[in-house]
Amino acid sequence: MKLHNFNSGPSILPQPVLEEAARAIINFNDTGLSILEIGHRTDWFQEVLNEAVTSVKQLMQLDDAYEVLFLHGGATTQFMQVPMNLLDDGETAAYCDNGIWGNKAAKEAALFGNVQVVADSSDKKHTYIQKEFNIPGNAKYLHLTSNNTVEGTQWHSYPETSVPLVADMSSDIFSRPADFKKFALIYAGAQKNMGAAGVNLVVIRKDVLGKVLRKIPTIMNYQKHIDAGSLMNTPPVFAVYVSMLTLRWIIAQGGLAEMAERNEAKSSLFYHTLDSLPLFTGTVAKEDRSQMNAVFFLKNPALEVPFLDLCKKEGMIGVKGYRTVGGVRVSMYNALPLASVQAFCDLMKQFSSKNS
Amino acid sequence: MKLHNFNSGPSILPQPVLEEAARAIINFNDTGLSILEIGHRTDWFQEVLNEAVTSVKQLMQLDDAYEVLFLHGGATTQFMQVPMNLLDDGETAAYCDNGIWGNKAAKEAALFGNVQVVADSSDKKHTYIQKEFNIPGNAKYLHLTSNNTVEGTQWHSYPETSVPLVADMSSDIFSRPADFKKFALIYAGAQKNMGAAGVNLVVIRKDVLGKVLRKIPTIMNYQKHIDAGSLMNTPPVFAVYVSMLTLRWIIAQGGLAEMAERNEAKSSLFYHTLDSLPLFTGTVAKEDRSQMNAVFFLKNPALEVPFLDLCKKEGMIGVKGYRTVGGVRVSMYNALPLASVQAFCDLMKQFSSKNS
Repeated sequence: MKLHNFNSGPSILPQPVLEEAARAIINFNDTGLSILEIGHRTDWFQEVLNEAVTSVKQLMQLDDAYEVLFLHGGATTQFMQVPMNLLDDGETAAYCDNGIWGNKAAKEAALFGNVQVVADSSDKKHTYIQKEFNIPGNAKYLHLTSNNTVEGTQWHSYPETSVPLVADMSSDIFSRPADFKKFALIYAGAQKNMGAAGVNLVVIRKDVLGKVLRKIPTIMNYQKHIDAGSLMNTPPVFAVYVSMLTLRWIIAQGGLAEMAERNEAKSSLFYHTLDSLPLFTGTVAKEDRSQMNAVFFLKNPALEVPFLDLCKKEGMIGVKGYRTVGGVRVSMYNALPLASVQAFCDLMKQFSSKNS
Repeated sequence: MKLHNFNSGPSILPQPVLEEAARAIINFNDTGLSILEIGHRTDWFQEVLNEAVTSVKQLMQLDDAYEVLFLHGGATTQFMQVPMNLLDDGETAAYCDNGIWGNKAAKEAALFGNVQVVADSSDKKHTYIQKEFNIPGNAKYLHLTSNNTVEGTQWHSYPETSVPLVADMSSDIFSRPADFKKFALIYAGAQKNMGAAGVNLVVIRKDVLGKVLRKIPTIMNYQKHIDAGSLMNTPPVFAVYVSMLTLRWIIAQGGLAEMAERNEAKSSLFYHTLDSLPLFTGTVAKEDRSQMNAVFFLKNPALEVPFLDLCKKEGMIGVKGYRTVGGVRVSMYNALPLASVQAFCDLMKQFSSKNS
């Protein structure tokens, strides 16, 4: 049976990336060694890291004001690491609480300084993005989550702000072009659009560093990672390698403009189908719908289990909604083909016909 | 050319582990999906995690007083995470400084409480293990590094102590049986004897937790990871999987007794050869020599480059000494066959004959 992988993360990766990664597990670049067995201070790995960093800078069109790091952990690590590096005791940071992950990020930041939640869409279960708000003038930065994986919302244009802008882009990184120079810091766990779980991409505009008095543990100190070129300690070698391959694939496909076109085509097809079928209902505000994660429900809750069972039977993987939200969620990351979305839409139509 | 992988870490892994991992990158357990594409909350990954945890408990003969975690990062992360969880402001921890990594661990701990360095072998460039020392009665724990990867020394029996014993076992974990119940906490980056870079094994006796008043960032909080069964956030799925395969391999080979026998055979052969060839000199105290990492020098420094060149030409990988130590280092982890040590010893003899 043909499987369609709608996992929310870890999620579908491009087939050529998987094939190259499998080869490298046995014989990396004809070295006769596995990618798992090579030293991280070899020229071999340095080339992998260099290509990964260069690819990020190229795709984001960043100049030398920015540094690109690949660090251990996932976005949850960055929830702590960002304020540890940027927010001193007694200082204030502004956070947008437009979803479960932004909410968690704000809570971690509160361990390091004062957190002011400037936007909060929890009044409607985070089914929209609160985009109008006031930022305290003394805020060290404004933190937002560019795409809410769980709730299915996405910022379609970023706020104008005079304070440094920090974004968790874990679930829509490299899905579309943007003016990335608006950001002082961007972080993303790799396991959605850019690789395997176990590595974080962190992009930093260097001028925001070195301003806190706190003693930062070495392994958490961005500046020390910059000084060591992401090689302060043994990096997650294989995860960095898979990110490099995925970035290479994105560039070869045509870069972020091409990714945006594909993602637009997939999400348009999906939402058009959703809106055309009265059996289903999307609860997210239309203007804030995510191109990456579509969350929806059966109007008749009794039909949810039969629908999810049908999905399973037909090879639709990972479409059960997040445990706190329920319903159905289809994730349509870069590597997901349009054909999978078409297959899912056909299934929705088929289920609708039988149950209307 | 046949390669012999003496890398200090990331380092050689068992061939069957590499082959299984490569297959899983394309098709994990006949699911039709890659191990990189499956959700971490699936039964599929839960089984991987369960087997990894059970294997650790079996190999270490641990009872339910202990918890086994697989966490993001490497040992350097634990240098911070251990004191963050166990050492409150104003409290004292005892550290053994018998090598570069123990020294770094002590420095990180000093950010969280008082550190008393109770053993220090830096007077002789860490070429021995200081094993006699006094521990302050109020110490929250004693920290040691079981094997010093860089300097080539190893604890061959662990100290008796009334304070909780904490060990960084990154470079000799699962290389030999021991009474692991002597320890309150054991941690190890996986990339030597138990897998790929990007995951930490942390074994904790639960009664040492919950005693600090500090607010611990969620992602660093051992107790929260225990409560969530290592699934608080997306774990480094592939790295955990490779650890599980490596643990499965160790058990299938005969467990820690068998590993110890092999490691004893390899290191005996190597050190016997070293001691028999006047061209070479080992600087490490004989009683503290490591079975994992043998560090030695050419008595005539002018011969070092020619020897390293010959090693390279003959496919001996990763034998250059650590940058701060120099000389030659051969790492002989579990997965290294005796034949590789034999080949290296033959090369030493050949070089000796030509240069004596």
